[in-house]
Amino acid sequence: MAPPAPIVADLTTVAVKYALLDNNSTASPTPAKASNGELALAELDSSKLKVTITNSPKPYYRPETSQWGRADATTDHWITVRWTDTVGWHAPELRPYTRMDLWPTASCLHYATECFEGLKAYRGYDGKIRLFRPSRNTARLLVSSTRISCPGFSPSAMEELIKALLSVDAEKWLPEPGTFIYIRPTMIGAGRALGVQKPREAFFYIIMALFPKLDNPMKLLASSEDSIRAWPGGFGYAKVGANYGPSLMAQKEAQIRGYDQILWLFGPDASVTEAGASNFFCIIRSKVTGKLELITAPLDDKIILDGVTRRSVLELARERLADELEVVERKYTMADLASAHDEGRLVEAFAAGTAFFVAPVTRIHFRGKDIVPTKTDGEETYTNTIKQWLAQIMYGKVEHEWAVVVEEKGFKSEAVSEAEIEEMVKKIKELKASRAWQAAFEKVKSEELGDA
Amino acid sequence: MAPPAPIVADLTTVAVKYALLDNNSTASPTPAKASNGELALAELDSSKLKVTITNSPKPYYRPETSQWGRADATTDHWITVRWTDTVGWHAPELRPYTRMDLWPTASCLHYATECFEGLKAYRGYDGKIRLFRPSRNTARLLVSSTRISCPGFSPSAMEELIKALLSVDAEKWLPEPGTFIYIRPTMIGAGRALGVQKPREAFFYIIMALFPKLDNPMKLLASSEDSIRAWPGGFGYAKVGANYGPSLMAQKEAQIRGYDQILWLFGPDASVTEAGASNFFCIIRSKVTGKLELITAPLDDKIILDGVTRRSVLELARERLADELEVVERKYTMADLASAHDEGRLVEAFAAGTAFFVAPVTRIHFRGKDIVPTKTDGEETYTNTIKQWLAQIMYGKVEHEWAVVVEEKGFKSEAVSEAEIEEMVKKIKELKASRAWQAAFEKVKSEELGDA
Repeated sequence: MAPPAPIVADLTTVAVKYALLDNNSTASPTPAKASNGELALAELDSSKLKVTITNSPKPYYRPETSQWGRADATTDHWITVRWTDTVGWHAPELRPYTRMDLWPTASCLHYATECFEGLKAYRGYDGKIRLFRPSRNTARLLVSSTRISCPGFSPSAMEELIKALLSVDAEKWLPEPGTFIYIRPTMIGAGRALGVQKPREAFFYIIMALFPKLDNPMKLLASSEDSIRAWPGGFGYAKVGANYGPSLMAQKEAQIRGYDQILWLFGPDASVTEAGASNFFCIIRSKVTGKLELITAPLDDKIILDGVTRRSVLELARERLADELEVVERKYTMADLASAHDEGRLVEAFAAGTAFFVAPVTRIHFRGKDIVPTKTDGEETYTNTIKQWLAQIMYGKVEHEWAVVVEEKGFKSEAVSEAEIEEMVKKIKELKASRAWQAAFEKVKSEELGDA
Repeated sequence: MAPPAPIVADLTTVAVKYALLDNNSTASPTPAKASNGELALAELDSSKLKVTITNSPKPYYRPETSQWGRADATTDHWITVRWTDTVGWHAPELRPYTRMDLWPTASCLHYATECFEGLKAYRGYDGKIRLFRPSRNTARLLVSSTRISCPGFSPSAMEELIKALLSVDAEKWLPEPGTFIYIRPTMIGAGRALGVQKPREAFFYIIMALFPKLDNPMKLLASSEDSIRAWPGGFGYAKVGANYGPSLMAQKEAQIRGYDQILWLFGPDASVTEAGASNFFCIIRSKVTGKLELITAPLDDKIILDGVTRRSVLELARERLADELEVVERKYTMADLASAHDEGRLVEAFAAGTAFFVAPVTRIHFRGKDIVPTKTDGEETYTNTIKQWLAQIMYGKVEHEWAVVVEEKGFKSEAVSEAEIEEMVKKIKELKASRAWQAAFEKVKSEELGDA
């Protein structure tokens, strides 16, 4: 028999190629032709951004009094862009943050045609706003979007949109040097057809939210054999919704048992993959060479997220700690960790990702046994050294090409008064009491959205 | 080392237990206590259904002129129920079908906290409406919902809600004997918090839509090694969104190459699992016994959907074809299919599920080779015999306990006139032109939804 025909293209190659194209190109990882085969679809074009400033600004919450948890603590504006398979990308809009409208049949609500990115903006000690390697996030979002049959786009146009939102909202929402804000670009399939098919419409948006500092030391519960996060040939490498919902049950179990996150294992030999939604690292003294090794799982079987923090940790360690640490991306197992622990060779462990930054791991529970690194805290650890190096870049204490400064404009709101709002509330309630409200309101929406 | 602690409970056991409880019980697979630990959360209670009939009925489309594809062809009403972790299940509502509101941070848009069911209602030749084994669907939805940390519910209450929607909309939307309509119960995590956690709010809804007849013969393309639908310890057995979005890329590839669906394989030995989103069956003459065997993959490794049609096919074949066919649920591989084909022992193959009903498979392409059953069409096949038996039950040609008759009330709409609607459209547009519209409108919504 002949070898199997490749079904899934090499997505990373597709994404990287696309990232090299300029915004005006019509080439795209999704077909760039309209259904009549004649017209090229419009590219995502950040220069077409339409800006509408809120006239009803939200109160600002300080991060330490964050509304996080029950509700979201999103900023005043968001960026939205609609994509249809007849037009391509419509003009992006920066507009007041609101609820969104979706048909109950929208693809993303049934088939998980959804993916996202998570990145942070940092207010430097010099007062400047910086993004950390944002082109890594936009390129990865393209990989994720392609994996779930959502549209392609120019990553550089997306980066411009992220900057546009920051340029308006960061002044108010990220005022204090040494703090950060969380940015969530999100792509969802929004087509109305219930059939299981590539969505004919999509909706891309960027929101920003206050986000707690989560880099405290963490305890991990190793996953059991009946709970597997990702599989070769699946989608563990992509930031698609499908990797998260099914993981919540194990996570809840971990929390009930007093752990912070799951350490996800894979295969009969219990090889170590990720910690919660972060990458996992350990520092072990090699039995063979006697040297310290910084070890993390490799990307080649595509079950692990290609984390921006992961990549940065590896690059900094290779560049600055070469004399002390050997940096290795290789498969390793719980048995390796356990014997290193038993023999006093497991020196440090940490989780690394955007949400939890660099968080020391103080304990791993695996099959009735606790595995504890010899150094779990303190300034003298490699974990802390690497974390500080990253923070210095993020907050502009040192100049580094990974930090991208964003120019700010802020916004001035011509705010409507409470009295005006109250009067309008009364008028809306009056209209809503009428029999014709619902049909008329849906008609107005349909006209606006062009999807009658 | 001790054996691994079980993290994921036996969901089927949970679901079945729950299904046996009556609606007033406070037992639940999700914690039935409010956050203060004192009050039990409200159960899903179909007797509290609040009915609001549309005053702007949609035009009826005949199935053969279906708007399917570009848009949806949903009926006039839907049923919605909100769940919060402080109240539990709110009162269900049957109301006019509209767009829905979600916060951009809603859990289902980021983390695929979403699951659904698909079932059909049939207009019998005796004029009665029937559901086919609906309790199987509601029990499975509970399994799915639990798997993605969405709330539990009484399956029988859910069945009552499905019947309530049918009792109102079936008269208009399913008038013709011998036709069916598609029903889609859907559960989504709707909490506003961006953190990766069990959703604190959820939204359950039921919609009905015209749906094309899809039981034509189909050609399958076997999946390649780099594309895996489900894995042990994952969620292939649950009808969660996460199983679908990531499968679209392979499906599109299949369609481009002239096939209808993917035949999903698993493992290095290419064992056969599912056909698209349907279960897959083949009829092979055993090399050993010389007898015909009806074979489908087993459920025990939980990578295959426990299909209602699958189960019904197996049960009917065991009951009525025992003299002719041995019915076997066992692991089998593409090599088994290929050698059966080469030796003239592959007699029939078909896909079975709600969407595609029982569809004969005429060809399977695997690693450069076509595998073709000897009987691919015609009335004389077992495929057709089983299909007709099922249809007779669904359309009431024979009495059978699997068919559940639904009483109808229909609805009378006190329709608003076009003129009234147009006048209201004008008024809404006037208000919308005002500066205070957006803030006021959001305020009214927040009051209504109680989530200011």
